Amino acid sequence: MGKRESIGIGLLGLGVVGGGVAKALMERAEALAAQVGCPLCLRKILEKDLAKARASKMDTALFTTDPAEVIGDPDIDIIIEALGGERPALDFIKEAMGRGKHVVTSNKEVLAKHFPELLSLAKEKGVDILYEASVGGGIPLIAPFKQDLLANKISAIYAIINGTTNYILTRMASEGLDFSSALKQAQKLGYAEADPTNDIEGIDAAYKLAILATLAFHTEVRPQDVYCEGISRLSSRDFRYARELGYEIKLLAIAKEKDASIEVRVHPVFLPEDLLLAKVDGVYNAVQVEGDLVGRVLFYGQGAGAAPTSSAVVADVINIARRINLGVTITPTLRLDPTKKIKPISEIETRYYLRMSTVDRPGVLAKISKILGDNLISISSVIQKESDVSADVAEIVLMTYPAQERAMQKAMGEIERLDVVREISNFVRVED
Amino acid sequence: MGKRESIGIGLLGLGVVGGGVAKALMERAEALAAQVGCPLCLRKILEKDLAKARASKMDTALFTTDPAEVIGDPDIDIIIEALGGERPALDFIKEAMGRGKHVVTSNKEVLAKHFPELLSLAKEKGVDILYEASVGGGIPLIAPFKQDLLANKISAIYAIINGTTNYILTRMASEGLDFSSALKQAQKLGYAEADPTNDIEGIDAAYKLAILATLAFHTEVRPQDVYCEGISRLSSRDFRYARELGYEIKLLAIAKEKDASIEVRVHPVFLPEDLLLAKVDGVYNAVQVEGDLVGRVLFYGQGAGAAPTSSAVVADVINIARRINLGVTITPTLRLDPTKKIKPISEIETRYYLRMSTVDRPGVLAKISKILGDNLISISSVIQKESDVSADVAEIVLMTYPAQERAMQKAMGEIERLDVVREISNFVRVED
Repeated sequence: MGKRESIGIGLLGLGVVGGGVAKALMERAEALAAQVGCPLCLRKILEKDLAKARASKMDTALFTTDPAEVIGDPDIDIIIEALGGERPALDFIKEAMGRGKHVVTSNKEVLAKHFPELLSLAKEKGVDILYEASVGGGIPLIAPFKQDLLANKISAIYAIINGTTNYILTRMASEGLDFSSALKQAQKLGYAEADPTNDIEGIDAAYKLAILATLAFHTEVRPQDVYCEGISRLSSRDFRYARELGYEIKLLAIAKEKDASIEVRVHPVFLPEDLLLAKVDGVYNAVQVEGDLVGRVLFYGQGAGAAPTSSAVVADVINIARRINLGVTITPTLRLDPTKKIKPISEIETRYYLRMSTVDRPGVLAKISKILGDNLISISSVIQKESDVSADVAEIVLMTYPAQERAMQKAMGEIERLDVVREISNFVRVED
Repeated sequence: MGKRESIGIGLLGLGVVGGGVAKALMERAEALAAQVGCPLCLRKILEKDLAKARASKMDTALFTTDPAEVIGDPDIDIIIEALGGERPALDFIKEAMGRGKHVVTSNKEVLAKHFPELLSLAKEKGVDILYEASVGGGIPLIAPFKQDLLANKISAIYAIINGTTNYILTRMASEGLDFSSALKQAQKLGYAEADPTNDIEGIDAAYKLAILATLAFHTEVRPQDVYCEGISRLSSRDFRYARELGYEIKLLAIAKEKDASIEVRVHPVFLPEDLLLAKVDGVYNAVQVEGDLVGRVLFYGQGAGAAPTSSAVVADVINIARRINLGVTITPTLRLDPTKKIKPISEIETRYYLRMSTVDRPGVLAKISKILGDNLISISSVIQKESDVSADVAEIVLMTYPAQERAMQKAMGEIERLDVVREISNFVRVED
């Protein structure tokens, strides 16, 4: 019934993701052929590291160190890009599409930075590019935005989309570890890289949020549009106060649209402990979406790892391969509305948690409250504890009612200049 | 760029779902036209109740009481079936496909009972039938099985897929209500129907589970294959013991595959309180899926209601309409493996919670334990409380280690015949 004897696959990169994909394609070849209607044939693998190639125990004839041998192979229909990073992945993807090949990629960086460009090119060349694995590993997240939730006007996305930081925060919350010990644990277990910057500073989450927000709001959201703060400033004290106040601390990627104005930000957040999202622990990811018809939906699962990521990559391959076999061409449709604006962080409105070290003297709280009041910020609760009597140091923790970020930043500047305040130890935004 | 000036829609039924769909199609006509590439035109609505038609404030010329006027209209490309129930919905769907029309349905009963038949007919007639709204309202659930999780071998589904019963159980758990009061509350709020049988006896959940299991395991699972027990036997005492033991009680729809043998069952379950699924409260639904690549994923949202359901129906309409506009024909693919067997409930293995009313005398527990031991069932924990000293009645609560259902049923028969046991008040299966 199909039109093809087989469909040729080329794989770029045999790292964690590429290795998982190659394994899945080999081990379940029969089931995949049944799904597609003809066999999927892995014809070439680009891998510079010959030790990796040997360790894979796959036929050495599959391997090449020359990208042109994969991208230029006339018997290859679909290129799976699993190199990661911006270059040379971007060039290979464009080259492949230029040669009429469909592309499946798990590369959030390339996609976040070149989303409209890559989709336009695919359309122009009459090919498709799928990228389900770029956000949330094996959790179906891209497809819902491209299809299942399409009838909705999406108002908000709240996402835990970085497993490394969620693992670190979970350890800090459950065991009272400080940040650097929790990071070391994560590195030891392979959940954090030797250079963890991209994860702990929220850069990885910002790439993923840019992709989701672009799809959800039909407008181009670039990584540099995403306000980004990492988790390294959080201390075990913040976790103790959060618990006392009924909150969990999570690194959230947040995107909201209101009146054609979009806010996109990645930073630590106090989340009420009874929310489902607050209960997402360890390396798990979860994305909560709010649409005007569907209400609140949430998708949960493992956001990384060889097997979950290959689940998404192989599903994309099946999707394209089925259409090749049916002789059907579908190119990406990405409608972008250029009229929407990105809201600067100074204009967002949220509640705040503020932890300060002050001298231990009457009247300190009054001075702080006055500054907040002068900036139109109301306090919803206060915790004041003598943390070190001998050193004449007290700790004051405040939660505010909703206020504008600009006013809050101004007030914090003024508070820090008070002679009774030693430092603002931390401030964290609160989402309800 | 599209091939069509417009795409004609016919709607069968203007009830809760149909009304929501009509509203969505009207109100967001412009956005939908942009998604599809040409306008979606609602041409005819079948509705016997003319009061409903008038109340809708839609053009009265749209309405008819004659199904042939909708199904037979040559300008209609897609029929949306929103009548519910098996007949006449089934006949209308078949008739529509016979006339070359695509079908979108939210009808779990028709689908669960005639799944392979309807998909084969669609294939034969060169049309598509989509049914995302049939399970879990607006939560994307069908699409993941048909597409995103396709690379996986699915081993288990654990689903809260009936909002009515989850609402009742949540009220019983949080407020100590008994079943009949909680049911009355649900009816008052419109979460339960006047005749609540289909919901509270698990029949609705069984239809939905049959659909999910058929898709997940690529084998026909019929509603009558699903072992089904409702929630009416649960009492507030069971909730108190559950809490004491660290569990929540949920009506779960469970499907598992092991060694080409499938178990499908709907019944109340003790779920460890720290599982995400145990925290799904009120009318919300959640479906947890376990795949060999993806691991554990969970989908959460509102499983019913006009707006969430229309989110799914309209997405299906967009999906088909886009393909019509591109001139692409895709018919359903449902591969069914006839070699898999349905496991009878007597052969399942799980843990059990058992609550008994006994005489208040030494040695009672020893007699019960002996019967369990003789049937190779081990006890993991016991709670014994004097519930009514004056009446010489004690209550014994047991949790077992995993045992086979057949052995458990036999043991319960023997325990009930003990002269020191007044009754087995309840038993509930436990999932970890």
